[in-house]
Amino acid sequence: MTEQILADAIRDMLDKGDLESVRIFIESEHPADVAHFLDTLEPAESWRLIQLLKLPDQAEIFGYLDLEHQVAVSALAGRRHLARIISEMDSDERVDLFNELPEEQREALLPALAQAEREDIRRLASYEEGTAGAIMSSDYATLTPDLTVRQAIEKLRREAPDKETIYVAYVIDDKRRLVGTVSLRELIVTPDHVRVSEIMEDDPVSGHVDEEQEEIVRKIAKYDLMALPILNGGDALVGIVTYDDAMDVAEAEATEDIHRVGSVGPIDASVRDASIRTLFSKRAPWLILLVFANIFSGAGIAYFEDTIAAYVALVFFLPLLIDSGGNAGSQSATLMVRAMATGDVAMKDWSKMLGREFLVAGALGLTMAVAVSGIGVFRGGPDIALVVALSMVVIVIVGSVIGMSLPFILSRFKLDPATASAPLVTSICDATGVIIYFTIAATILVLPAVG
Amino acid sequence: MTEQILADAIRDMLDKGDLESVRIFIESEHPADVAHFLDTLEPAESWRLIQLLKLPDQAEIFGYLDLEHQVAVSALAGRRHLARIISEMDSDERVDLFNELPEEQREALLPALAQAEREDIRRLASYEEGTAGAIMSSDYATLTPDLTVRQAIEKLRREAPDKETIYVAYVIDDKRRLVGTVSLRELIVTPDHVRVSEIMEDDPVSGHVDEEQEEIVRKIAKYDLMALPILNGGDALVGIVTYDDAMDVAEAEATEDIHRVGSVGPIDASVRDASIRTLFSKRAPWLILLVFANIFSGAGIAYFEDTIAAYVALVFFLPLLIDSGGNAGSQSATLMVRAMATGDVAMKDWSKMLGREFLVAGALGLTMAVAVSGIGVFRGGPDIALVVALSMVVIVIVGSVIGMSLPFILSRFKLDPATASAPLVTSICDATGVIIYFTIAATILVLPAVG
Repeated sequence: MTEQILADAIRDMLDKGDLESVRIFIESEHPADVAHFLDTLEPAESWRLIQLLKLPDQAEIFGYLDLEHQVAVSALAGRRHLARIISEMDSDERVDLFNELPEEQREALLPALAQAEREDIRRLASYEEGTAGAIMSSDYATLTPDLTVRQAIEKLRREAPDKETIYVAYVIDDKRRLVGTVSLRELIVTPDHVRVSEIMEDDPVSGHVDEEQEEIVRKIAKYDLMALPILNGGDALVGIVTYDDAMDVAEAEATEDIHRVGSVGPIDASVRDASIRTLFSKRAPWLILLVFANIFSGAGIAYFEDTIAAYVALVFFLPLLIDSGGNAGSQSATLMVRAMATGDVAMKDWSKMLGREFLVAGALGLTMAVAVSGIGVFRGGPDIALVVALSMVVIVIVGSVIGMSLPFILSRFKLDPATASAPLVTSICDATGVIIYFTIAATILVLPAVG
Repeated sequence: MTEQILADAIRDMLDKGDLESVRIFIESEHPADVAHFLDTLEPAESWRLIQLLKLPDQAEIFGYLDLEHQVAVSALAGRRHLARIISEMDSDERVDLFNELPEEQREALLPALAQAEREDIRRLASYEEGTAGAIMSSDYATLTPDLTVRQAIEKLRREAPDKETIYVAYVIDDKRRLVGTVSLRELIVTPDHVRVSEIMEDDPVSGHVDEEQEEIVRKIAKYDLMALPILNGGDALVGIVTYDDAMDVAEAEATEDIHRVGSVGPIDASVRDASIRTLFSKRAPWLILLVFANIFSGAGIAYFEDTIAAYVALVFFLPLLIDSGGNAGSQSATLMVRAMATGDVAMKDWSKMLGREFLVAGALGLTMAVAVSGIGVFRGGPDIALVVALSMVVIVIVGSVIGMSLPFILSRFKLDPATASAPLVTSICDATGVIIYFTIAATILVLPAVG
């Protein structure tokens, strides 16, 4: 059912005051759709509808709501009721909500929770943002190596309602160290009496609580895992990251990278719903920084003012030449930024990449020079054409090499390579391009170079 | 184990000619790691190592190899042997390989396959690239509504070895129409005698063979699905797309979008391994197109040549002003491109977005005007400062609105909104900026506007 039809149907029933029909209808819809609809309502209205449902459904829909909306609705729910919902939520989702609640509400809430949940929330809340610890769930199923298949299946069956997944179980020793994994698929095709230790996958792929989320996502994607087990400093199993959370992280990371390529700071919320203030604050710093970068181009032009005054026709080619350098540089930077983000290219590949960039950029520069030399002859005669063609080759090569190198340099200094955005590379290449162009012009046309 | 250590260990054993140790070692490693290592070898060497393994392991590793490497190794494998490997591969992976094989090899291969596999390959190969049909797998498990839980589990257990997943089973009627889904989790916690129809999820989320892959990925992510069932025109179940394939598609789509934002055509292969020719051909068309876009800026400047000659100081601010428009436009375009790709913003949001863009851009323009007016006074006196400040406000607003609107316009004409790349927007805004700047200058400084 499309969201619009869902929304219309619910509104219609609400208008008629038919809450019972609303309840039955909501229960029949996918919680993700219901949550998406609730996000568009006022928190009070949203809360009224949520209360119509059974507690587990309340918790599930809560987990699908926008975090901002969860907080707003939480403010309306009584402390006891909220504690019950939170107890039912997945451990990774509830800690995300908990972290967003006001200090006061958090403190009121904790005593209302059971001991185990309180500790779980405290523990999960302690990991730094961006690490595996911050997105992991503690609702995983464990087995011990000595269990028989029959016992293992029985244990998983009993624990199923409280676990995020029972399709992979983690085999641990008495110190909670991960010694293997076993899939439910393997368990159900194996005779009852076989021991878990005989069928488990030894030496499973795992992650570390402090590992970056990108790295976790990369492992899940590379090994086609349903969940990645996460270990602490003592190699004990402390959580799992499931594929669906990995997909969300991957999408958020890609959005952040794309925004950076366009010189926009990371925006957490939806662009559609972001406030004017948020959008302004994510864009203004970059624009202002770039203005100052462009002053170098201006200064370069000012330096060659006499050359320009004597040969105003040169100005015609200025945007074309310097932008070509910026465009070639943006291309190279973009390719490197993405390749570094996906792990396709690493620091050690710099020299290989540099050599190849020279060849590609040389070929591009020559092609572009041919493309513009005709216009050069037409607009300013053979001398100008020579200046323009020569400048184009040099500018495209220099621009490409700058664009290719910048992500590596940023990464070297522990900065995000994606900071090498298209506009930043363009600005740097512009300034370089001005100098290259007018230096070549001043040399070939034998004009005064210093203003 | 890191890839480097794995590679070193294998090479060491190979040097000693100890193939038996190589076999045991390879078998103990994750097939994804082994494949990643094999990708770095010559096809002949790779094929020699693959042959050491048992057939199911050969097929699994084959599926993890780069497609190009799969084709190269396939050329070395005998027809019968290749047919056996292909029979063991997942249906979606084998059709990907099949599509890449030379015509001749495909025709030789088909008769060596069993009837069912031949038909399956023919059917899957018939879907257009980019659609759900082209990535779906036909290795899904089905149940009928009348089965008891005990019978259902028994069926899944029997079929487990041939299915991509048995954790979700698709309940179909006698016309293969999808009537529900049931998870293995639900099955194992339900008493034996209950019917599948009583516990299945009715009205499950599904996709269509002709649906775009992005849409399929969006559904899997939104509903946290393990696999999405795919229906044909007659609403019959014909395949599934699993979450791991969806993750790969999502990554490839994000890469394509990022490349487009940087004005690079879509590159299928790894950037690290792409040939000079590929890189050239993905970059040159855009660079040349952008040169011609920049000719408009040049023409704009030429039109105002007299203004410039009379007031050379204006040229100092040219890069700064026009780039600010381009940068603001790039930001807006990037935000919209990504928001449209993730489904955050749709066509119908244009007017809302436009209104907000005016406010944000106005605020940005005023801020930038303040930032540059100081330099304006310093470099050219109050008149120039006024021209520069005023131009900045107008240029930033116009640039932002162009950048924001372009993805919508492209989408309206059924083009990829991501074609509104940062460099393209920059070029368009440059030309617009030149005209705005010199028009304002000519008006305020009362200079001849026409050259």
